[in-house]
Amino acid sequence: MTSKRSLLTTLIVGSALFGSHTSARESDLLPSWNNGQARQSIIEFVTRVTRRGSSDFVPAGERIATFDNDGTLWVEQPMYIQLHFALDRVKTLAPQHPEWKDREPFASLLKGDVHAALAGGDQALLEILMATHAGMTTAEFEAIVRDWLATARHPMAGRPYTEMVYQPMLELLTYLRANGFKTFIVSAGGIEFMRPWTAEVYGIPPEQVIGSSIKTRFEVYDDAPVLVRLPELNFLGDKEGKPVAINQHIGRRPIAAFGNSDGDLQMLQWTTAGPGLRFALYVRHTDAEREWAYDRQSAIGQLDKGLDEAQRNGWTVVDMKRDWKIIYPFEKR
Amino acid sequence: MTSKRSLLTTLIVGSALFGSHTSARESDLLPSWNNGQARQSIIEFVTRVTRRGSSDFVPAGERIATFDNDGTLWVEQPMYIQLHFALDRVKTLAPQHPEWKDREPFASLLKGDVHAALAGGDQALLEILMATHAGMTTAEFEAIVRDWLATARHPMAGRPYTEMVYQPMLELLTYLRANGFKTFIVSAGGIEFMRPWTAEVYGIPPEQVIGSSIKTRFEVYDDAPVLVRLPELNFLGDKEGKPVAINQHIGRRPIAAFGNSDGDLQMLQWTTAGPGLRFALYVRHTDAEREWAYDRQSAIGQLDKGLDEAQRNGWTVVDMKRDWKIIYPFEKR
Repeated sequence: MTSKRSLLTTLIVGSALFGSHTSARESDLLPSWNNGQARQSIIEFVTRVTRRGSSDFVPAGERIATFDNDGTLWVEQPMYIQLHFALDRVKTLAPQHPEWKDREPFASLLKGDVHAALAGGDQALLEILMATHAGMTTAEFEAIVRDWLATARHPMAGRPYTEMVYQPMLELLTYLRANGFKTFIVSAGGIEFMRPWTAEVYGIPPEQVIGSSIKTRFEVYDDAPVLVRLPELNFLGDKEGKPVAINQHIGRRPIAAFGNSDGDLQMLQWTTAGPGLRFALYVRHTDAEREWAYDRQSAIGQLDKGLDEAQRNGWTVVDMKRDWKIIYPFEKR
Repeated sequence: MTSKRSLLTTLIVGSALFGSHTSARESDLLPSWNNGQARQSIIEFVTRVTRRGSSDFVPAGERIATFDNDGTLWVEQPMYIQLHFALDRVKTLAPQHPEWKDREPFASLLKGDVHAALAGGDQALLEILMATHAGMTTAEFEAIVRDWLATARHPMAGRPYTEMVYQPMLELLTYLRANGFKTFIVSAGGIEFMRPWTAEVYGIPPEQVIGSSIKTRFEVYDDAPVLVRLPELNFLGDKEGKPVAINQHIGRRPIAAFGNSDGDLQMLQWTTAGPGLRFALYVRHTDAEREWAYDRQSAIGQLDKGLDEAQRNGWTVVDMKRDWKIIYPFEKR
């Protein structure tokens, strides 16, 4: 009996300590976030859906959270990182394509005139993407992406792109997962451009990454099966494509969604239209000094209709300048 | 000190008991499997990839296992269950489609002549599927599937289809998950036909179900966003489509794959072609008394080329009659 009573005492004291420890940590949550409305709305939502017995309680398996990538988890200025990758690939592949010297959009690109190259609109962009993203196996493409990321640098910051991620959002991902959420990326970017590095950088495994894709074909060469990447669009995961992709890939509705542009609006609408407590958040780029300031008029990451909808629906809008103590992980002391 | 020592003693005795309990349980693993080569090959594989320090060790996150559904996890005779669903839907919808009385394949179906209806081959089948699987929202379709499964019965066994699953395979799924595997379904069946019940029946959540699909379109009606199911094939997840779907959905190669037909051959090839220890298993239907006996000549679930490949590559082949003590969960005492 003595030992049992001691054990019991240990457990009770232990719980009490643990309880007070948990409370103490409340103020340490999301340390790179200033304690404004945005931070509070996140913590309140997570607390409510995880509190057993609460009418807002959601079982762990159903705590699905989806995140846009470009402009929400990492920078998208002065150009989408995947576009930088494609432009670099054009230069690398140019010696094998002498015909590109006289053919747009490649001719302008090779002269260094990105603006003229992209004047051809979506068709020009698609040609660049297909010329640089198809024609190899999936394993080869993964190696190409890894190699490029290892040496590519952000043109203004001079840092690897995998460092140009938002520290407050990394903390948010960790906080959600610690509370039983399953975190997914739902991006218009290429699914196979993201998968080689999202586990290491965001803690999100390949099977929880959703994005745009081209078609692949299964082939067997000398007893070795491969998947060959074809120059044909399979799926475009932007705007209306995001709820479609979420349904196709996850098969249930998220209870929380995070974006930064009108391209994410339908994902936020789809998420908040479900029953029970829901959470939608827009990251608004308001910090011209530490990052960039852009929204309604921007060609990249335009946030116009989404901002109106956020105000109308009471969604959380993060003001980067006001709400984030630091932007990038390398600012941590 | 007394209480600490007591606690310590408790822990040590506890571990010792737990340790011997674990060993004792080895013989209790996969209880519906006879202790033949098939069972032993499974346990040996799982033991090797989970033993820390072993050269075959695979980290938990990378322990991906993919399962075919029809004929591998549940019965596919005398007809695919989803086909039974489609035929029942034709009957239910017939009053709204008076034109079906004079139009094949519906006319024959409504007269009860399935054979004549399906004489039109893939085109007839596709027409039946589109007429019965499209034209409603995803939420409506889910309710239709749930309602049907609640009342439909296997034509020979007279039981709900969700009871016509293989008990030994349920044990295998549980055993793999207990050893850190993430289990996926990769089926040629409809992804949204499976998702309403796979969590309950197999313990596999919607986001780990992969299958064939039709296209959907995002629409907003009176501020309510919905996904409408369109009569257009999006993806066919059979044969060469299985590795394509695995790459698209999971983004990494499984280390173990389980099937029962030539439709699974490419998935097994893709799985075993990766580096390190791999596992491939075919369920062979050899039990005409308790289930069905069919392989090389069967129109449903043909296993011909796959059987040759299995023998050539030393894959595990389950002989249902010999290897399984019971087939269905309801046989348990």
